[in-house]
Amino acid sequence: MTTQTELGAWMAQEIAEQPKVLADLVRDRAALRRTADHVRRFRPRFVLFAARGSSDHAALYGKYLVEVALGLPAGSVSPSTTTLYGAEPDLRDVLLVTVSQSGGSPDLVEVTESARSRGALTVAVTNTPDSPLGAVAEHTLDIGAGPERAVAATKTYTASLLALYLLVREIRDTPEPPDADELGELAQRCLDAGVQRVDAVASRLRFAERVVTTARGYSLATAAEAGLKLAETSYLLTRYYSGADLLHGPIAAVGSGTAVLAVCGTGPGGRAMSEVLDQLTTRGAEVLRTGPEAEHDLLVPALSEDLAPVLEVLPLQQLAWRLAVERGLDPDRPDGLRKTTETR
Amino acid sequence: MTTQTELGAWMAQEIAEQPKVLADLVRDRAALRRTADHVRRFRPRFVLFAARGSSDHAALYGKYLVEVALGLPAGSVSPSTTTLYGAEPDLRDVLLVTVSQSGGSPDLVEVTESARSRGALTVAVTNTPDSPLGAVAEHTLDIGAGPERAVAATKTYTASLLALYLLVREIRDTPEPPDADELGELAQRCLDAGVQRVDAVASRLRFAERVVTTARGYSLATAAEAGLKLAETSYLLTRYYSGADLLHGPIAAVGSGTAVLAVCGTGPGGRAMSEVLDQLTTRGAEVLRTGPEAEHDLLVPALSEDLAPVLEVLPLQQLAWRLAVERGLDPDRPDGLRKTTETR
Repeated sequence: MTTQTELGAWMAQEIAEQPKVLADLVRDRAALRRTADHVRRFRPRFVLFAARGSSDHAALYGKYLVEVALGLPAGSVSPSTTTLYGAEPDLRDVLLVTVSQSGGSPDLVEVTESARSRGALTVAVTNTPDSPLGAVAEHTLDIGAGPERAVAATKTYTASLLALYLLVREIRDTPEPPDADELGELAQRCLDAGVQRVDAVASRLRFAERVVTTARGYSLATAAEAGLKLAETSYLLTRYYSGADLLHGPIAAVGSGTAVLAVCGTGPGGRAMSEVLDQLTTRGAEVLRTGPEAEHDLLVPALSEDLAPVLEVLPLQQLAWRLAVERGLDPDRPDGLRKTTETR
Repeated sequence: MTTQTELGAWMAQEIAEQPKVLADLVRDRAALRRTADHVRRFRPRFVLFAARGSSDHAALYGKYLVEVALGLPAGSVSPSTTTLYGAEPDLRDVLLVTVSQSGGSPDLVEVTESARSRGALTVAVTNTPDSPLGAVAEHTLDIGAGPERAVAATKTYTASLLALYLLVREIRDTPEPPDADELGELAQRCLDAGVQRVDAVASRLRFAERVVTTARGYSLATAAEAGLKLAETSYLLTRYYSGADLLHGPIAAVGSGTAVLAVCGTGPGGRAMSEVLDQLTTRGAEVLRTGPEAEHDLLVPALSEDLAPVLEVLPLQQLAWRLAVERGLDPDRPDGLRKTTETR
């Protein structure tokens, strides 16, 4: 096994690999097509996602895609209803999508196996097709991101989002996927552009202790994932809220001592953020915006709103890395973190 | 309108009303029975919940009940897929349960109306049956908690949990509900016992800035709600995690500067918390436990695990109140909080 000595060298390398990982995933869609064919024949009435951690944020994005693009209701499985309480729901007509980088969490394997035996069509989205999860799922989609050594997931997160996006497109039989080269180039430019702006934002957050991340719509997954990256690498207590929920109550806890990372998309979700941003500014919060406009603090490509989350997390990953390193922490070895969850 | 001058007098009064509110709800089950009859005839294949804020935590509890006791898959609606993106999922065979104290949030009204027109059987659980939500839902279950004046929900939260518990029991046609008087007395004793222990815990949290709440299984709703109460009344940044998710990654952000409120139930969910508690203790976190054992820091009645969340939040509500008052804040008027969300 390679040994890394520089702080966060693995995470930095894996962030940098994303343009290639994403472009490759668009190019090789044979398994996606087979799975999509089966899903269309199966005609699911309901879609459930099973996932934990970063993969659960990919599932949150998938839930929006399914509801909006496939017109199907979607939910997420609480693995403990099966593993702790022995629930045996009737899952005929259900498509279960399990998202797991390692494919090794025993509870997700158990949920998938149990769902399949109760009639669900099961699809695993994983970076480890040769895993216990790959063995129990009926279809396995390999996100092909290569080994992920940093404990904080980066390339497997964006690859999982893109796999879900492509799967939903295939299920709808939408002919033209995004161009592989173009997507890779956009990702590269986003990372290149990030460096300078990320440094400026990291300086503003140097002593932050309270960070709230927020967004609406598809980009909520980005806010959730950005919050988790900061918590994992910089020991920050972070919390993400849908912009709508934030106005409901928790905005009471946001004041001049709180940094807010807001993800502002291009479509209705982004526009719905304006009221939220106005209120946050009024309260004196330090608001840092990620979005496609020149005025945004972290800049991302102007993609359609349903594809944007694949790239808009990139500068936020860079930010989490930079902030950890500035604080003398090693983003590759967050204290107490295990790569595979072994909860049941 | 009455004017309250003492800090948090309304919230204190509404916390104290809960024994009566809960007992009354068990006594008057005619509407529950009618709704349950219809649900049984409708034979739903899936259950969806729509809610925000505290009500969304009631929905989280409802999701466990539905999966375990009814054997049906359940999910929660992201209102924005309808209100922002115009999603029109096919909802035949779906039971939609909308939980809203005020019945006035425009997005929940729109989601409920739209779901009904697309084939869902719609049930509103609300404290305001004569509300826009009550007008659009096919069945309205009045939780009958009386006017809630404090902005932080307390009695409407526990009443919503109990209404969901009773509804699921009726749908299963389980004959004997909990005894009304007994439940009321248990609630009263829990509140009475709380006072002293809550003071001790509040002292230990006097200067806490980082609070994580955690639980597994049914009690996860309690952890989520306790976190929200603290955020709303004491301006604390809180975050709740399933015990399983906490071990996955965010435990990296928990150290000796973090207070952890752990909810420890009686059944499998409670037992599954022991690994989590061990790890938290090893990390030097200040762990405060709520549960039915004498050694727990906050004491709750030893109910069956599926009913426990109705009462186990009581000392945590008292804690949120006490902590706010000790910090000189008014728990009745958290800065920036509105009683009805008006997001779309």
